[in-house]
Amino acid sequence: MDVTSLAVSEKDIVQTYLRPLAIGWPGAYDLLDDCASITPAPGQDIIVKTDPIRSGLHFFIDDQPSDIAWKALATNVSDIAAKAARPIAYTLALSFPNSPERNWLESFSTGLAEAQDAFGCILIGGDLDLKSDSLSISVTMFGEIPKGRMLRRGNAQPGDSIFVSGTLGDSAFGLHLRTKRVSADDITDYSDLALTRYLRPEPRLGLRSALRSYARAATDISDGLPNDLKSMCGISGLGAYINAEKLPFSAAMQNVAAMDFNRAISLVAKSDDYEILCAVPQENCEKFISSARSGRVKVTKIGEFSSDSRIQLRIGLKKVIEWS
Amino acid sequence: MDVTSLAVSEKDIVQTYLRPLAIGWPGAYDLLDDCASITPAPGQDIIVKTDPIRSGLHFFIDDQPSDIAWKALATNVSDIAAKAARPIAYTLALSFPNSPERNWLESFSTGLAEAQDAFGCILIGGDLDLKSDSLSISVTMFGEIPKGRMLRRGNAQPGDSIFVSGTLGDSAFGLHLRTKRVSADDITDYSDLALTRYLRPEPRLGLRSALRSYARAATDISDGLPNDLKSMCGISGLGAYINAEKLPFSAAMQNVAAMDFNRAISLVAKSDDYEILCAVPQENCEKFISSARSGRVKVTKIGEFSSDSRIQLRIGLKKVIEWS
Repeated sequence: MDVTSLAVSEKDIVQTYLRPLAIGWPGAYDLLDDCASITPAPGQDIIVKTDPIRSGLHFFIDDQPSDIAWKALATNVSDIAAKAARPIAYTLALSFPNSPERNWLESFSTGLAEAQDAFGCILIGGDLDLKSDSLSISVTMFGEIPKGRMLRRGNAQPGDSIFVSGTLGDSAFGLHLRTKRVSADDITDYSDLALTRYLRPEPRLGLRSALRSYARAATDISDGLPNDLKSMCGISGLGAYINAEKLPFSAAMQNVAAMDFNRAISLVAKSDDYEILCAVPQENCEKFISSARSGRVKVTKIGEFSSDSRIQLRIGLKKVIEWS
Repeated sequence: MDVTSLAVSEKDIVQTYLRPLAIGWPGAYDLLDDCASITPAPGQDIIVKTDPIRSGLHFFIDDQPSDIAWKALATNVSDIAAKAARPIAYTLALSFPNSPERNWLESFSTGLAEAQDAFGCILIGGDLDLKSDSLSISVTMFGEIPKGRMLRRGNAQPGDSIFVSGTLGDSAFGLHLRTKRVSADDITDYSDLALTRYLRPEPRLGLRSALRSYARAATDISDGLPNDLKSMCGISGLGAYINAEKLPFSAAMQNVAAMDFNRAISLVAKSDDYEILCAVPQENCEKFISSARSGRVKVTKIGEFSSDSRIQLRIGLKKVIEWS
């Protein structure tokens, strides 16, 4: 047996693979203490998000460990980004059914390091369990934002424009490619793009300034557009309509839509794309688009909030379906 | 079937059982948002602890849900207490293999409410999963402490006195009673006490002022005294000796020790009593004891830190065993 794949102790996992990720945060105490500490910058609130990722839903056990690690951080950073906050630190609770192998840990910690660099956050503490029933990865992410400025989910007003960042549906398409026997029709030049979107979502941190200055409410898309839209609407009794033709598609999804538009819509409905969905007052729309462009994030107006509590998808001039 | 035990939806769980626990924390947003926010008091650090509790180790699936809830919070609050910090808030990630029943949720949320009242913390957010492989309860606890004053685990010096709060061994004895067929010898008037210590540990929040003013290092006892002592020593290359006769025993453990002293020692070695283990410089000992008394926490000097890197248990005048 290759010596590098021998099972490793808890102490070794912390020392070899996790401690290097805690460099640069004094309150992580090199992961040697029971607790971590956060010294908030004056005038800043700390934003908190806990979102475990689950095998079989967010990832598969045979995915690259570096991709699993990336996704564990990205899904939580995405929430912080939607609140117009800046990610700063996270804790990680890791459970393994057996002691993991060194090459798994090597890849996993590399993925964490890549995500930390991309998102600007540092590992500050956590918990490790080598006798669990199953692999479980639970991240609690911390963000920073000027006091009282957290962008809320439920503050939209009737008449506000609905904007979405990036493109929609890719993640569900990627998941489909990842799990099903794919037909020849599905194998396109774009398959890689969709797979990457599923495995390595990109939280839209570049939208922070535009959100803070011009949006009224926001959430990230982690349960499919209609579900997340419903969450935004439900809190304040609003409804919304979406123009199907405006839904922003990647080249991969354009290809799907060209073959079967209904299938594209159905992928969008269940895709956790980790894009940002937000409400922008009419008078702010142009400034919002321009500010988003400065942050290098494409945004698209896809519909409007209304006061009648239904979520409608308008397809062409005549067809309207209830979408929730 | 009793209508009160019908399976419930995610929305209903949040609304009926969890939202009332978030009252009083504006940044919990009634659990209606994606994230929670913490507005730190000026000059305070935020202390963070993540510690999932596990079925079969920290609790059993047929324990009272209110006891499971209490323990989930108490084990994390215990860490915050050992850092001389004040618990303020927590997030809760709950996973169920099936939709839980209303009477389970009723009891569980009652236990959370009791623990919140006892420890002074509020639920501010979390995550709920009704399609998990197993029941999993993961708490991230937040505490507050004046900037830079978190009591560290690894700062003890040779010659510092080792103090422990409360009594030792009860939790392991309680676990024994909970899991094994107990012999007639074990059934004493004290069984209830030990069982309660296992099910409902009491974090030593009353020790905060004494720890802040007079201790040099501290941890809580969650892996058995010798293991936690080893963690304190290992960081700075210290050793320690413990006087077995000084180990503080409850009436239940006194009874065990009277029958079989070695068994009592062996229970202490594996008991997660959630007592506080700390290093107090010689010159502070009297003031530490007096301040602890003001906080209504009994503390006992059980040994001393040394510079020779061994953890020794001294029994009587002649017997010394390596204890780790």
